[in-house]
Amino acid sequence: MSQRRQIKLGAFLMQTGHHIAAWRHPDAQADAGTNFRHYAELARKAEAAKFDAVFFADSAGVRSDDRTFLARTARADHLEPITTLAGLAALTERIGLIATASTSFNEPYNLARKFASLDLISGGRAGWNLVTSSTDAEARNFNQERHLAHAERYERAGEFHDVVLGLWDSWEDDAYLRDKQAGLYYDIDKLHVLYHHGKHFSVQGPLNVGRSPQGRPVVVQAGASEAGRELAGRTAEVIFVAHQTVAEAQAFYTDIKERAIRHGRHPEDVKIMPGIFPVVGASQDEADEKFGRLQELVQPQVGVALLSNMIGHDLRGYPVDGPLPELGETNGGRSRRELLVGLAGRGELSIRELYLRICGARGHQQVVGTPKSIADQLHEWFENGSADGFNIMSPWLPGGLDEFIAGVVPELRRRGLFRTEYEGRTLRENLGLKIPVHPAATGRRRLVAAA
Amino acid sequence: MSQRRQIKLGAFLMQTGHHIAAWRHPDAQADAGTNFRHYAELARKAEAAKFDAVFFADSAGVRSDDRTFLARTARADHLEPITTLAGLAALTERIGLIATASTSFNEPYNLARKFASLDLISGGRAGWNLVTSSTDAEARNFNQERHLAHAERYERAGEFHDVVLGLWDSWEDDAYLRDKQAGLYYDIDKLHVLYHHGKHFSVQGPLNVGRSPQGRPVVVQAGASEAGRELAGRTAEVIFVAHQTVAEAQAFYTDIKERAIRHGRHPEDVKIMPGIFPVVGASQDEADEKFGRLQELVQPQVGVALLSNMIGHDLRGYPVDGPLPELGETNGGRSRRELLVGLAGRGELSIRELYLRICGARGHQQVVGTPKSIADQLHEWFENGSADGFNIMSPWLPGGLDEFIAGVVPELRRRGLFRTEYEGRTLRENLGLKIPVHPAATGRRRLVAAA
Repeated sequence: MSQRRQIKLGAFLMQTGHHIAAWRHPDAQADAGTNFRHYAELARKAEAAKFDAVFFADSAGVRSDDRTFLARTARADHLEPITTLAGLAALTERIGLIATASTSFNEPYNLARKFASLDLISGGRAGWNLVTSSTDAEARNFNQERHLAHAERYERAGEFHDVVLGLWDSWEDDAYLRDKQAGLYYDIDKLHVLYHHGKHFSVQGPLNVGRSPQGRPVVVQAGASEAGRELAGRTAEVIFVAHQTVAEAQAFYTDIKERAIRHGRHPEDVKIMPGIFPVVGASQDEADEKFGRLQELVQPQVGVALLSNMIGHDLRGYPVDGPLPELGETNGGRSRRELLVGLAGRGELSIRELYLRICGARGHQQVVGTPKSIADQLHEWFENGSADGFNIMSPWLPGGLDEFIAGVVPELRRRGLFRTEYEGRTLRENLGLKIPVHPAATGRRRLVAAA
Repeated sequence: MSQRRQIKLGAFLMQTGHHIAAWRHPDAQADAGTNFRHYAELARKAEAAKFDAVFFADSAGVRSDDRTFLARTARADHLEPITTLAGLAALTERIGLIATASTSFNEPYNLARKFASLDLISGGRAGWNLVTSSTDAEARNFNQERHLAHAERYERAGEFHDVVLGLWDSWEDDAYLRDKQAGLYYDIDKLHVLYHHGKHFSVQGPLNVGRSPQGRPVVVQAGASEAGRELAGRTAEVIFVAHQTVAEAQAFYTDIKERAIRHGRHPEDVKIMPGIFPVVGASQDEADEKFGRLQELVQPQVGVALLSNMIGHDLRGYPVDGPLPELGETNGGRSRRELLVGLAGRGELSIRELYLRICGARGHQQVVGTPKSIADQLHEWFENGSADGFNIMSPWLPGGLDEFIAGVVPELRRRGLFRTEYEGRTLRENLGLKIPVHPAATGRRRLVAAA
């Protein structure tokens, strides 16, 4: 059935767009963050273009207490992703629905239920982007002064993941008899109670939501630190990642696939989808000009605050046209910080130059050009062992996505690199991921039944 | 604008229907619990009939470990309500969307976000039915061996409620400038950070979701114990309650309105909506026969287990045609238990007779009759100070709701007791509840701004 390997595409929908100043773009939907109709329109467009999924980021709080920054960005104003995607599930038929949710600020039973419900509501199109969260600001909304240390939150994340998957396996696929005459709703022997007692969680189960058409939601991850990679190699089915160079991307791709194999998985069981921030123009000049206009909308207070936040170091006291100072230790997200410090070092960039480098794609690859030149770059990454697909981070919305769909998608199709019709009805089918066999059917895992 | 006081109606959508054996009804949608299309159809019907809201119960676990019972009921198989209602929000325009969620097994920041998001997705139609949950089975999914004691969980619930409302007041209604030219998204002086430090929670805030068209979601409650009534008198805007007699209903109604006044509220600020389980027939005989057919579908193992669960005492060893034994102390839901013990005492009912009394409405009022006789009873309760409206608990679905809409709703309209068109677009407008003024505008509460 599947002939040629094809590119997977996610539409990463970030409020008014990924560029920090996107909300100021003349054509941007300024109230996008809380405007469900805006998202509904985008999801329908992405589905019409046969994207694999829409993807939503999340944070469990307002990450900055810098009021100057807050007043000038749209970032603190957004709908919660799982509810939003449940709404979008009702209005779409085929496109996958991936929501970010934190293992640090949720309980596994609640999260397992919500994603299982989204999966059923959507007919098997849900994905969970597992994150550990990185800010104290979020921790302070959950009875903590500071966030868990990096190693501990990854340890918690690993156990959280295992509990969630165990709960999703509460009922076998054929547990449902619904035999009205006999009065038997379930074949109760197909019920598996979890009885989990671990370091971070005690969760008895079973889940009170049934199994989904795709077995269970797709697990997505984005961590790129050593701990993040190891968790991803063991558990992730899709990886969303930020790279600046082909060499970095190839090394990451190879590393993750090797880790997957080490955990007894097949390399095809994990799809690697770097983030791409595309600015599409009819000519290179037009694309450059579009990007330049967005960059001009960045207010210095916003740029400095954004950079400070991302590297976990307050840069407000330093000259904006001077270099990045020496940074101390941080408990924040490791990979993003290393990437930025690397950027600064490689290019000897000033604080201003550096924040302008991340105002768009936050460290992800920026691709500014014509449909052909953008397709060339995606094509290259896809063929040279850097990527199985891409998460498209439109600079502003809705226009940025429209332009990608109108220009780049047809160009990819001309090369046979992107589908013209969905392969299946579930996210797993479209991503080319296997539908998991229930462990009770494989005998691989012992699930204890209640007395 | 409002002339005559009218009945408020909720459609309490319980999977295959409220009767415990509903899933065995020939016309019931047997897989209803996880069938989103089923709920979409019901919500559209209820909206076409101008119901105030659809209402979903919830539990954070499978409440029974009695496998004989579990195998024979549909109760453990259901979608999570907030995700379900977010999906329904996308398919409806006017009807309110009330989801149950527990203060014992959630964190206030997460819950505040999800309901605020549902409220925005629906254009101001969300309601939160605040419950404290009552079973150890649920607690065991959340790192606990036993559930919190009754008094402590109500104490936690009160603080939880206050934190959630504080978070919903993070942004004033006019905080949103979205001035692209000036580069100001917010009027940052309209941001209010909560800085809550209490016995059960420390939550800094602010919420990362904006304010909704109805100010904030409607708060619904169902507790009828002393602690539950006191919390409701202070905080509830709608009360869902179970009564067997007019005298009980009147006493409760008067008590709650008095408590509301004592807390500085207006009696109209809280709407009391008892649950009603209607079985509609063209004649009384037909209605009795319909009900009888449902009762015949109850399997004794199911009835005994249901009753055991509800009163927190295992009755499996007792003769099913004998009396209820003496019951010890319980940490479960108080009000439901008292109601059942009262029922047993009043009627000298056997265990079988008692479970048959609760297999339909679980202690709520059963009304079996013609559209006219049912309307007579609702009319009486509404006029004699027992109720402001009713939460309709259809015996089976979809048919039971269809029959109520086809028969009873027109009868209520003929008497001028029920609307022919929605009064407004938000749940508050339709329920006749005031849209709350932000505390910063009233000066009643001091909200501290971050430095």
